[in-house]
Amino acid sequence: MAGTDHSSNASDNTLGGVQPVVVLVRPQMGENIGAAARGMWNFGLSAMRLVAPRDGWPNERAVAMASGAAPVLDHVQLSDDTAAACADLNFVYATTARDRDLTKPVLSAEEAALDMRARIGRGEKVGVLFGPERAGLENADVAQANAIISVPVNPAFGSLNLAQCVLLVAYEWLKVQSVQPVEAQQSSAETPANQSEITHLMDNLETRLENAAFFYPPDKAPHMRLNLRNLLSRLTLTSADVRMLQGVIKTLGRDAKGARPRPKNE
Amino acid sequence: MAGTDHSSNASDNTLGGVQPVVVLVRPQMGENIGAAARGMWNFGLSAMRLVAPRDGWPNERAVAMASGAAPVLDHVQLSDDTAAACADLNFVYATTARDRDLTKPVLSAEEAALDMRARIGRGEKVGVLFGPERAGLENADVAQANAIISVPVNPAFGSLNLAQCVLLVAYEWLKVQSVQPVEAQQSSAETPANQSEITHLMDNLETRLENAAFFYPPDKAPHMRLNLRNLLSRLTLTSADVRMLQGVIKTLGRDAKGARPRPKNE
Repeated sequence: MAGTDHSSNASDNTLGGVQPVVVLVRPQMGENIGAAARGMWNFGLSAMRLVAPRDGWPNERAVAMASGAAPVLDHVQLSDDTAAACADLNFVYATTARDRDLTKPVLSAEEAALDMRARIGRGEKVGVLFGPERAGLENADVAQANAIISVPVNPAFGSLNLAQCVLLVAYEWLKVQSVQPVEAQQSSAETPANQSEITHLMDNLETRLENAAFFYPPDKAPHMRLNLRNLLSRLTLTSADVRMLQGVIKTLGRDAKGARPRPKNE
Repeated sequence: MAGTDHSSNASDNTLGGVQPVVVLVRPQMGENIGAAARGMWNFGLSAMRLVAPRDGWPNERAVAMASGAAPVLDHVQLSDDTAAACADLNFVYATTARDRDLTKPVLSAEEAALDMRARIGRGEKVGVLFGPERAGLENADVAQANAIISVPVNPAFGSLNLAQCVLLVAYEWLKVQSVQPVEAQQSSAETPANQSEITHLMDNLETRLENAAFFYPPDKAPHMRLNLRNLLSRLTLTSADVRMLQGVIKTLGRDAKGARPRPKNE
């Protein structure tokens, strides 16, 4: 998918005000930090904190991988340990795939996004912990969190990587921002044809088919007419569609007459 | 996140039976095909089709990147064009970030996942088209789809990459597997026609219109053809509908010839 709107300003980065903070705990590869930044920025998250990144900070590989998501890396906050990174947060979620012997609420990414929105709405600061690539968060990290985010995966292949996990959390975050009732389901702003246009289309088609003895045998004709009208009414045709179909019907009727003779290429 | 359960058997790969097919249209880099395979397999999808991959197939870079998701690449189906890849599918979704002048239902990834589950439950075969990395699907590809999947992203950075997009669709697919079934959304129990039937119908209509010089003037012809194909693909026609429309087209062409002369009642 592509479609960056370059007219948008980078100052749009909060996309709705205060956001959850993404905390990468002891990330190993710069590439993964960059990819995580991209995943955040795809869905409008911009606040990243790093706890003791293995290869130090800044990291050229992270910058290269993040291309386009520089607003995230430009404002990274660095901490020595998880506690320091979470010091100002009111509520912390830990992402983990393994079962832990820690009694905490376990939320799906979607439930967590809804919970975050509610908390932020009440003035809380929230953050999400993501563990190192190889082994995930240690129990000591998880113990600092108030709740766990768990993403159900294929049990035969549970290895969501760091950037994928960040992406999904960011995706669910942006999703819950649009609580607006679902938009009209049509991409086109075109107005559907009115019933009069549909009726004229149907009458025209039926007359031509009548003349060509389409509705045969007679005992099946009513059912055939009904099916045809039913089909047309299912279409949600626009006025432009109706004009095109009227043209098609007219043209097909002219076809055999050869109004503008052409070599057959059948 | 980590936590592969190695005790699970690869034969679990369907995770609940029939699945949506992932169709990568003209993918460019092998790495992205491999990453898409991982994204699918993370959430239990295993049926991948490739349309004219730029660097041919098989592709070593795809295999290297897919590590662990070999069950997906081992069963890739290869096609020369999008129509062939969709021939046996009853309902096709196209992923796109750009606005199109094509009137089709637009669904979120979540809505699409629910719709897929309902259709698969009714015995339909469904698939999702993903475009090439650089430019996304062409209008000609989108015109073959019945609906559009659009993922809302940060307007300042809309560049979801191919593997991310596949990941999100697969994620939503697995998510809805645990949701209560919804009622069937269609009153008709009939299975939609497959893409092959639709293609035959469209080809027949187009040939007849071509012979009757419908597509005129020449500079507007491609747009007219696209609109017509788009209209037909929006219909969700059943096999019975296709047969009826084939009869209508044949009859209209015969109309002017007066194969079975009748008094005109116009």
